[in-house]
Amino acid sequence: MNIAIVGVGLIGGSIALRLRETEQYNKIIGVDKSEANRKKALQLKLVDEFVTLEEAIDQCKVVILATPVDAIVQLAPYILDRVTDQVLIDMGSTKINILEQIADHPKRGRYVAAHPMAGTEYSGPEAALPDLFKDKNMVYVEAFKSDEDAFDLADTITEQLEMKSLFMNAEEHDMHTAYVSHISHLTSFALALTVLEKEKSQGRIFELAGSGFESTVRLAKSSPDMWTPIFKQNRINVLEVLEEHIKQLQKLHDKIEAEDYEGLHKLIKKSNKIKRIIK
Amino acid sequence: MNIAIVGVGLIGGSIALRLRETEQYNKIIGVDKSEANRKKALQLKLVDEFVTLEEAIDQCKVVILATPVDAIVQLAPYILDRVTDQVLIDMGSTKINILEQIADHPKRGRYVAAHPMAGTEYSGPEAALPDLFKDKNMVYVEAFKSDEDAFDLADTITEQLEMKSLFMNAEEHDMHTAYVSHISHLTSFALALTVLEKEKSQGRIFELAGSGFESTVRLAKSSPDMWTPIFKQNRINVLEVLEEHIKQLQKLHDKIEAEDYEGLHKLIKKSNKIKRIIK
Repeated sequence: MNIAIVGVGLIGGSIALRLRETEQYNKIIGVDKSEANRKKALQLKLVDEFVTLEEAIDQCKVVILATPVDAIVQLAPYILDRVTDQVLIDMGSTKINILEQIADHPKRGRYVAAHPMAGTEYSGPEAALPDLFKDKNMVYVEAFKSDEDAFDLADTITEQLEMKSLFMNAEEHDMHTAYVSHISHLTSFALALTVLEKEKSQGRIFELAGSGFESTVRLAKSSPDMWTPIFKQNRINVLEVLEEHIKQLQKLHDKIEAEDYEGLHKLIKKSNKIKRIIK
Repeated sequence: MNIAIVGVGLIGGSIALRLRETEQYNKIIGVDKSEANRKKALQLKLVDEFVTLEEAIDQCKVVILATPVDAIVQLAPYILDRVTDQVLIDMGSTKINILEQIADHPKRGRYVAAHPMAGTEYSGPEAALPDLFKDKNMVYVEAFKSDEDAFDLADTITEQLEMKSLFMNAEEHDMHTAYVSHISHLTSFALALTVLEKEKSQGRIFELAGSGFESTVRLAKSSPDMWTPIFKQNRINVLEVLEEHIKQLQKLHDKIEAEDYEGLHKLIKKSNKIKRIIK
């Protein structure tokens, strides 16, 4: 079986690396609009060759869409138009838009909406890691709308990536990712902007940066090409969580401003309940 | 030479563990007001014994203050009152208050203000790690006001902890730590509160939490007993950075709300400059 990966960056490249290790595929074929990415991916032997999208659809049983989410929304209907019995799987971080887009497509059954809950702050083919997905969750959205054989094929790939499976509807998925993924990126971007601004007048400000700062700010290295479309497509949920987060920061601010340290202590203690969730 | 460690938690316990490895001290003596901590620290063999603060001052050449910063401000003058030629070193995260407090003390020269830029989100004796300080920065504040022999002794300990030395004045130190340490904790506390609040109506919200969320929220496990006094003592700087951070978050919010995705892309790209600072 041949498999096509459209968008050979962090996610697509990592899928390619891991699937090659399984030795279950004749050819792993890449599609990427960036010549620099194609060159890099071939140097790193992520894929066997690059072809056009149309050629990839013709030659492969499975097409994995791992581009930024704006390109997913554009490409998915185009690919489904050309599909006979192939399976299309997207790896995007937002689902409501794409699912609306192909809801009435005659080939809807050949499509599986999936979101691997894995990533790093790096992007491009050189960021690909064979173990990126190991023991992480693959979230299927509206899986019941896919043909059984299409879903089974997608789930086989999930197993090959050594991932666990979860099922959600699109509304749940997009809201949950806003709260436990998208907001983390926004706080990191804002934190980086805050300290970079201060550096202009306090040149030595980063000398004292330690592991705590690094861990809260590292996501600010993430690609704007990947993240801008995510915030665009998940706009309503992202605005909600941003507003709530600003409110919580303002609450901490107000306790400190009012010198209500008992109240501040209580809020910090309450936040400590996160121990229950993360080890 | 005997050394006393007042406050045998994450920082004090880690100093004890590392200094024991150097085999340069006859006795490592602990002082801690919490009976539970004393018991735990003895079980973990962090220190040889616990004595009262007064006994520790009498028996040791060096006293290291590693309590929360409110206790440091109270204890430092009390200890200096009882010092002859011993050296007192504090490990607090804020410096303006403590330095004002002992500025005119007749034994000012015996005191060295130091801040190890190292830590984890855990607290208490069981959080102690022998390698916590390795290759991290020790910041000395107003080091020129310490007697030469007192500073040299403190710097020997810094070397034994395998740390690098930096020098700053108190205003610089407190502002810089607000920007690259204290704010990171506040964003984590606020993020934890945001998502924990949402969990009440969306029980499954943490199922999708991945490594990005974990890294931005892990500091929310930090002790309120340690952090409330830091925010209290660094109130002015902390309020400044909090206001700036909220402003940056609001800017991101407004771009998304206004659907100005070009402007959003520019802000994210600008924040990417943090790559220059953290690897």
